[in-house]
Amino acid sequence: MQKGFQGGDAVERYDIAIIGTGPAGVSAALTAKNRNKSILLLGSRQMSEKVAKAHEIRNYPGLPFVKGEDLATAFRNQLEQMEIPVTEQRIGAVYAMGDYFALQAGEEMLEARTVILATGVVMAKTLPGEEQYLGRGVSYCATCDAPLYRSRTAVVIGYSPREEAEAAFLAGVCSRVTYFPMYKDETDLPESVEVIRETPEEILKRETGLAVKTAAGEYATDGVFVLREAVAPSQLVPGLETDGTHVKVNRRMETNLPGLFACGDLTGTPYQYVKAAGEGNVAAISAAAYIDKKAKE
Amino acid sequence: MQKGFQGGDAVERYDIAIIGTGPAGVSAALTAKNRNKSILLLGSRQMSEKVAKAHEIRNYPGLPFVKGEDLATAFRNQLEQMEIPVTEQRIGAVYAMGDYFALQAGEEMLEARTVILATGVVMAKTLPGEEQYLGRGVSYCATCDAPLYRSRTAVVIGYSPREEAEAAFLAGVCSRVTYFPMYKDETDLPESVEVIRETPEEILKRETGLAVKTAAGEYATDGVFVLREAVAPSQLVPGLETDGTHVKVNRRMETNLPGLFACGDLTGTPYQYVKAAGEGNVAAISAAAYIDKKAKE
Repeated sequence: MQKGFQGGDAVERYDIAIIGTGPAGVSAALTAKNRNKSILLLGSRQMSEKVAKAHEIRNYPGLPFVKGEDLATAFRNQLEQMEIPVTEQRIGAVYAMGDYFALQAGEEMLEARTVILATGVVMAKTLPGEEQYLGRGVSYCATCDAPLYRSRTAVVIGYSPREEAEAAFLAGVCSRVTYFPMYKDETDLPESVEVIRETPEEILKRETGLAVKTAAGEYATDGVFVLREAVAPSQLVPGLETDGTHVKVNRRMETNLPGLFACGDLTGTPYQYVKAAGEGNVAAISAAAYIDKKAKE
Repeated sequence: MQKGFQGGDAVERYDIAIIGTGPAGVSAALTAKNRNKSILLLGSRQMSEKVAKAHEIRNYPGLPFVKGEDLATAFRNQLEQMEIPVTEQRIGAVYAMGDYFALQAGEEMLEARTVILATGVVMAKTLPGEEQYLGRGVSYCATCDAPLYRSRTAVVIGYSPREEAEAAFLAGVCSRVTYFPMYKDETDLPESVEVIRETPEEILKRETGLAVKTAAGEYATDGVFVLREAVAPSQLVPGLETDGTHVKVNRRMETNLPGLFACGDLTGTPYQYVKAAGEGNVAAISAAAYIDKKAKE
């Protein structure tokens, strides 16, 4: 089998896959495009929810007192002007394959010569039991793991209204879906989805499967989908060096894996928009230099 | 003598002195202000000349296809809105005094608890003889060293039209001033200043003093003022660790001198606006944290 081909179908191998559409990811995309690299920008067309929800940003150089919403709009428009599309696919895992990376997007595998992680930080703590049962009933990706729960029951713990689409998708596959919104907004879900306004405290192993425990009781289920905007980086990329929450990088935004770069909140404090944007720029330049050097070898 | 007082006159001790008004310095100032620190921002009210002269910047997130001139204007307006004045004083040297820094501005000494260097990089190479005779006829600061050349002759090598003001000032002190513009713009100088459109190749020691050598001949003089926007950082701050051109910093923008931070082009490639702005943000947060920690000790 030739590289870049899977089962006879050509898979486009991008120069740079960028995961995340916050200030770091957007900045990386703009600079990568400027360096004439082919880009796969993965994230949300709405840009980062954290940016969009920011009240007013007082220290973003060049945009005084900018509202988060307006900054997100500016980013979106700039990507459009630079003809950089956003691909709305959730990446379940990134594998270093030697001279390229494989990105798992549901049942599809995407390929890129280099990867820039700009996924932000998980602000919420993981639930007790979450990491313990990950892969054994707990999943971070509805698209990836829905087939495992066909005609079985699922609980979805959604940290943002954007996760409702995932719950709706699961409702078409599972026998029953229970949704715990971790936010105050009204939910907009199919009628078959039961919405419970209680706070999950723990994921437990029970004889018949798992259970989600709240102050009010336990909810038995076959699978638990914990859906947040960001996933812990070590879970996303096997072998990636972290200090738990943050990816270890040097001043060139290189991680311990050659060809894999990280930028933005993911690399540590301060969690600041322009710091993230600056790091995205550096990561893209480092990725471009890495590709150019490889091409000469 | 009490700290903060010199010869009976109170010297204001700022929390953070920021040297440079490019994207790094401006970003540091905005964030430092946000953190409620008192700031002394030293540079040019015209902002960085390098920014102002940039044709079009295609990868500054949030400002698509922004002209350098417009970015400089945006920075200037933002500083005004945030009530951050720019002090147009040239800093000749920064001295680490233990629990504060002394900044030499001509014959005046300024004080700050922390210093953020954001002076950019010297793009031009130094002239042969320049470093050799520095302090022995060669000077980087007209304001500082003019008294040494009262009624004597001076050559000014000016790398930007902004240096003409320095040459004009020297013309009122020295017996004769010869000006070598290192740019193509028309000069606007007092009639007494002789303008020579030749490229200085070397600074030489002669029996009667120094001489500036060009392809056309030699120009004898008592003093040579080499005036560039940026000075080599190791000359600005005694004891500062550099690799020659760049200041060594870690990811928090800390230098080897506690309380002294650096950001922007000065810290190394890539020379990019948003990278510089991001680093300025981090430097300001690190400086603020340093001050807060010191206050608790």
